[in-house]
Amino acid sequence: MEQPQTVKDCLGWAARDPSGLLSPYSFARRTLGNDDISLTITHCGVCYADVIWSRNKLGDTKYPLVPGHEIVGIVKEVGSGVSRFKVGDHVGVGTYVNSCRDCENCNGGLEVHCVKGAVFTFNGIDADGTVTKGGYSSYIVVHERYCFRIPNNYPLASAAPLLCAGITVYTPMMRHNMNQPGKSLGVIGLGGLGHMAVKFGKAFGLKVTVFSTSAYKKEEALSLLGADTFVLSSDAEQMKAISKSLDFIVDTASGDHPFDQYLSLLKATGAYVLVGFPGEIKFSPASLIIGAKTFSGSATSATGGTKGTQEMLDFCAAHKIYPLIEIVPIQYVNEALERLIKKDVKYRFVIDIANSLK
Amino acid sequence: MEQPQTVKDCLGWAARDPSGLLSPYSFARRTLGNDDISLTITHCGVCYADVIWSRNKLGDTKYPLVPGHEIVGIVKEVGSGVSRFKVGDHVGVGTYVNSCRDCENCNGGLEVHCVKGAVFTFNGIDADGTVTKGGYSSYIVVHERYCFRIPNNYPLASAAPLLCAGITVYTPMMRHNMNQPGKSLGVIGLGGLGHMAVKFGKAFGLKVTVFSTSAYKKEEALSLLGADTFVLSSDAEQMKAISKSLDFIVDTASGDHPFDQYLSLLKATGAYVLVGFPGEIKFSPASLIIGAKTFSGSATSATGGTKGTQEMLDFCAAHKIYPLIEIVPIQYVNEALERLIKKDVKYRFVIDIANSLK
Repeated sequence: MEQPQTVKDCLGWAARDPSGLLSPYSFARRTLGNDDISLTITHCGVCYADVIWSRNKLGDTKYPLVPGHEIVGIVKEVGSGVSRFKVGDHVGVGTYVNSCRDCENCNGGLEVHCVKGAVFTFNGIDADGTVTKGGYSSYIVVHERYCFRIPNNYPLASAAPLLCAGITVYTPMMRHNMNQPGKSLGVIGLGGLGHMAVKFGKAFGLKVTVFSTSAYKKEEALSLLGADTFVLSSDAEQMKAISKSLDFIVDTASGDHPFDQYLSLLKATGAYVLVGFPGEIKFSPASLIIGAKTFSGSATSATGGTKGTQEMLDFCAAHKIYPLIEIVPIQYVNEALERLIKKDVKYRFVIDIANSLK
Repeated sequence: MEQPQTVKDCLGWAARDPSGLLSPYSFARRTLGNDDISLTITHCGVCYADVIWSRNKLGDTKYPLVPGHEIVGIVKEVGSGVSRFKVGDHVGVGTYVNSCRDCENCNGGLEVHCVKGAVFTFNGIDADGTVTKGGYSSYIVVHERYCFRIPNNYPLASAAPLLCAGITVYTPMMRHNMNQPGKSLGVIGLGGLGHMAVKFGKAFGLKVTVFSTSAYKKEEALSLLGADTFVLSSDAEQMKAISKSLDFIVDTASGDHPFDQYLSLLKATGAYVLVGFPGEIKFSPASLIIGAKTFSGSATSATGGTKGTQEMLDFCAAHKIYPLIEIVPIQYVNEALERLIKKDVKYRFVIDIANSLK
């Protein structure tokens, strides 16, 4: 049904080798299937996953690699069986573009956890055997099930980071019932994910404390993002002063860091959600058991199901939650990836595909 | 208000030194306060905590030590302000006998997590400065808030293990919503806690798989306890065959064991509850993050609040859940503790205080 076509009419930028350097690359997308929509991509967010696979950090990159899984755009064509979208609709595509649609998780709207494995938006092997190519490209063809409606009047560029960074923090926050006004949330790290956790926290009515090792982030945490409190995590006195005071912690810090000191900040039965991917997880049993705390993992590979993703987009529109973004042309993408590695971005790069990829 | 009395009219058995050997010991209980009840103890369960503190394993034992925190009995006297109990009522006392009654956790019915520290039933420092003495004794005086009603017709001896073993597994099972009929539960270890987890699991309508390193436990897991499946955890083939098949795991195994192999048995978003207290907690981040799983700790020190404990007792009565017990006289207690260390008990010793401590 879904045939690869031979016309290389999709413009993209691809990495060709582990240097990760991206350059223009034209390729073919599959022809439109009955249940597919074809999307003219207007924007694509830049996620750290793009660095990981461009540079073959996990050893499984299939070059040429077209990154990008925070995709938004406008429907340009729909298959005959498509019911949810029509030409002209604003649509987003996140970290996966296919799944078995038959397992317990798919049936439960948790396609990202498909028992047979969700097909990731780039560097994945699709049902037809082709390697998926992501959103650093002019258009994409996706089964409508894996497309999300961007609410009217929600800026397309701002919607891009919601498709990975946004849903990655929203999903575990909802799973652990963090939407309880008056409760307290700690957010560790203030990057693409962390700044969204602060914004969701405030929208949920939480008292939000930001933790950072960088004192200069205090001003932006409080003024720019609206956090209630800032704690310099390297200051033992400040940390001790808030012992057992938090209901929830969302840990977005990259790299390894000790968990025990943060677990000690949780109240009894508090929940700790790790959305980064450290080298190891190790802590004292007492840190978890005294106070009956919960430690949960959730990361890019576990962003959220289709149901939760649409809910999150609608929530952002209803509560006027907009990621803070730096819009760049595709020609800037190699610099953007370098700056991302240096954490030199507030807080998410979004590539202006529509106006720069021609 | 609450005065220690000088008459040493309470008969008990106490450990005097780190040998942990228990022998008869008479001591004074405090006089009855307005909000206290005095309880003639009929039975007391034998918990591993009794071994730990009798033998000063944590270095904080205050000898002479009277163990026992699975206490049941009959009300013999009530203070003038007591409203919930009357003389003759069947009552239980668990792992704590006091708390500040003023903090967020106390107000929320989670007294065991009292911010100022719950006062444990033995070896604790009570508000009046005295060292608490447990249920290996003829009677106890406790504020009514920390006493629970044993439902009519529920055998007193059977109720004893519910006050620690029972509530220790019931609390995290409820917190993680394991009472969903049709879902699947794995139970690691088949001792005092594990056998209660199997019984609660079946009462919740779950499909229960028991894991053990001992093949001979298969028969008792299936026939005696009603588990649906038995898996020899040392058999890699059996373990692999049930990969990603469980919604929940309750880990009651004592001692250190690898967590990764069990985490791999959980479905996406599955919950792992540790009720033992290992030497360390360490696992691969992928084990938790791929599939967005939850790892939670809860142990004897975090049994359950007063609200949950009463709920659990009522649930056991309504569903005819009875721990499997071996009733022994107080004179057998040293042998019982030795056998407990060797895991030679099915599944809980209960001391017949009423008929043997005289």
